[in-house]
Amino acid sequence: MKHLSMLLILTCLWLPATVMATLRGTGDLGVVIERASGSILIVEHSQHTVLGRVSGLGDLSHASVVFSRDARYAFIFGRDGGLSKVDLLKQRIVKRTIQSGNSIGGAISQDGRLIAVSNYTPGGVRIFNADTLSKVADIPADYGQKTYSKVIGLVDAPNNRFVFSLYDAGEIWVADVTDSQDPKLTKYKDVGRQPYDGLISANGRHYLAGLFGEDGLAHLDLWHPDRGIKKILPGYGKGQNDQKLPVYKMPHLEGWAIAGSQAFFPAIGKHQVLVADTENWQQTGTIPVIGQPVFVMAEPTQRQVWVNFALPNNQWVQVINVESQKPVKTLEPGKGVLHMEFTPRGQAVWISVRDENRIDVYDTQTMQLIIQIPAEAPSGIFFTNRAHKIGL
Amino acid sequence: MKHLSMLLILTCLWLPATVMATLRGTGDLGVVIERASGSILIVEHSQHTVLGRVSGLGDLSHASVVFSRDARYAFIFGRDGGLSKVDLLKQRIVKRTIQSGNSIGGAISQDGRLIAVSNYTPGGVRIFNADTLSKVADIPADYGQKTYSKVIGLVDAPNNRFVFSLYDAGEIWVADVTDSQDPKLTKYKDVGRQPYDGLISANGRHYLAGLFGEDGLAHLDLWHPDRGIKKILPGYGKGQNDQKLPVYKMPHLEGWAIAGSQAFFPAIGKHQVLVADTENWQQTGTIPVIGQPVFVMAEPTQRQVWVNFALPNNQWVQVINVESQKPVKTLEPGKGVLHMEFTPRGQAVWISVRDENRIDVYDTQTMQLIIQIPAEAPSGIFFTNRAHKIGL
Repeated sequence: MKHLSMLLILTCLWLPATVMATLRGTGDLGVVIERASGSILIVEHSQHTVLGRVSGLGDLSHASVVFSRDARYAFIFGRDGGLSKVDLLKQRIVKRTIQSGNSIGGAISQDGRLIAVSNYTPGGVRIFNADTLSKVADIPADYGQKTYSKVIGLVDAPNNRFVFSLYDAGEIWVADVTDSQDPKLTKYKDVGRQPYDGLISANGRHYLAGLFGEDGLAHLDLWHPDRGIKKILPGYGKGQNDQKLPVYKMPHLEGWAIAGSQAFFPAIGKHQVLVADTENWQQTGTIPVIGQPVFVMAEPTQRQVWVNFALPNNQWVQVINVESQKPVKTLEPGKGVLHMEFTPRGQAVWISVRDENRIDVYDTQTMQLIIQIPAEAPSGIFFTNRAHKIGL
Repeated sequence: MKHLSMLLILTCLWLPATVMATLRGTGDLGVVIERASGSILIVEHSQHTVLGRVSGLGDLSHASVVFSRDARYAFIFGRDGGLSKVDLLKQRIVKRTIQSGNSIGGAISQDGRLIAVSNYTPGGVRIFNADTLSKVADIPADYGQKTYSKVIGLVDAPNNRFVFSLYDAGEIWVADVTDSQDPKLTKYKDVGRQPYDGLISANGRHYLAGLFGEDGLAHLDLWHPDRGIKKILPGYGKGQNDQKLPVYKMPHLEGWAIAGSQAFFPAIGKHQVLVADTENWQQTGTIPVIGQPVFVMAEPTQRQVWVNFALPNNQWVQVINVESQKPVKTLEPGKGVLHMEFTPRGQAVWISVRDENRIDVYDTQTMQLIIQIPAEAPSGIFFTNRAHKIGL
């Protein structure tokens, strides 16, 4: 009897404890990609700590993450076609599907019901129920050739649309998934040669696709889809610069920063950050920086823009003041700075330093190091407040 | 033995169940103020349901809410000086203090460590530890008179500052709470007569105070605090309009909307929404509406501005298109439309209809009613994604 009572007490103490351990808010959580080991860290940015690690996520090269609207679940898009749903509270994979042979990113619909993945093989977009990861629609990128086009630059847009670009076809498609089983497609042809990446502005109005095969960008105004695609920033690209350098890494278009009415974006093959007016998409400025920029990211209060660089300058981070349009600080976290993520209200920034197996957390005001966090070759960092943003 | 085993099983089944009931993400939660009954509803906006009610919160006239950075806790500012911390997962009050005799709103610091409350009696600001609600600093609004000034328009600002206005003194103060025990104050005098409310732009740069005692607004550029206070929009107020109507309700300045480079704000005593350029703060437009506007709120994609009205027109809501600057829809939810809150990515809006004891949820694209939710005389609605925004 005594033993049983003790068992009763111990068991009951133990059981809720395992559950209690995960009873917490999810507003300050995040995910760090550990590419080499196919794992993620689950982190929190109130105290800047690691809560746990989840493994078995496959090839996480170029992996990206979106979050459920309750900020409990992370959807992780791997390079191998893997789509994984991770419970951040229970720290485990709840669903995982190899949905294609080769994929490149994804998005969650405005209402949170649907997950879309853009695929290289077979080329197209597949759409899944966010609860179950069961497939609800398939959009093959059939452009009248023998093969399907690779699809890139997939983003969510207001009114439950997804927008994406067809690399081989030179097209941009808009899928209205209000009826998730039967997406309504609008196709824009001849948008430019080889769109290689895309982004959408934070208000969901402007879709931009970078062009690998020519200079300039393709622009679609989603408030006026009937006006079609316009070519903007015709000087933007690889071809027009006499002093151009070898391009070490194509910049990520996700790394554009829009601060007020100005867009800051990475030049290709040049040690420059470019500035454009978002009203008319004319270039208005050029900011010399220490290397070829990769990510150009506005701090949430829009007073600073933080920049990282391609090899051989990927040990640096530069901070640009938005008003003066000049670098005001150069930091050297270490080799392999791959990504940056700001805490939601901007007081700190997490920087992944891959080759040092560390995340460095800086205070954005003082630009001093707050803490270093061990991680295995960290790349992308994603905080759950992305759940509440269009296009992230 | 058998009984004990059964007890063991039942007890262990029961205990985790009570805990499991609240194991969920907190990104889609919210709070609805039920003023008359001193209670709040805890709600979620994925399925648009009520999760529970918490009572015993005192006088909730003009109550407002901020959220902890993990989005688990709501801090509720009552009219009676009550400051309550509610656990949204456990649905209960975890701390409550009557911190003054009469208070009007509060804020949470950028880093989430501190809660500030603005008080009428005694006039000033008190600052509390967000974890414990223990008082860490007291800022009496001493302006050299026998009494302290009433304090209003309290907001958080980047770099762990709070900004607020002194109604009786005609002053604006900035408190740097980097050292929470010893706030550093910057005081701006002669900002205009009787500032009665204040707001800060979403990027934390512009602080604006409405003036009850004269026309125009006081403006402080927090990127350049050394430049002092400037008077802007000199035509804004009660005095200059020949056709002015009785002012049924002073508009809430929290109800300004900034969409792109344009600010939309309620005219005082007129059936108009005014538009200004946020670069130079010049008025650029006037939009006729159906009544005296109270809240003028930009939908998160910034394509629409939604407006509610003072008596005798408080049964209406109008939707203004940002591009055309014209009302495109008039809705009639019912008597006593007091507040509106958009889901974070903008697909729906919750509208409190006090006199009908309902919340109406509309689809922002179709402008059709999605669902009606019973509530006891609901007023303010606050969703947890505010945790991630400056000034909310």
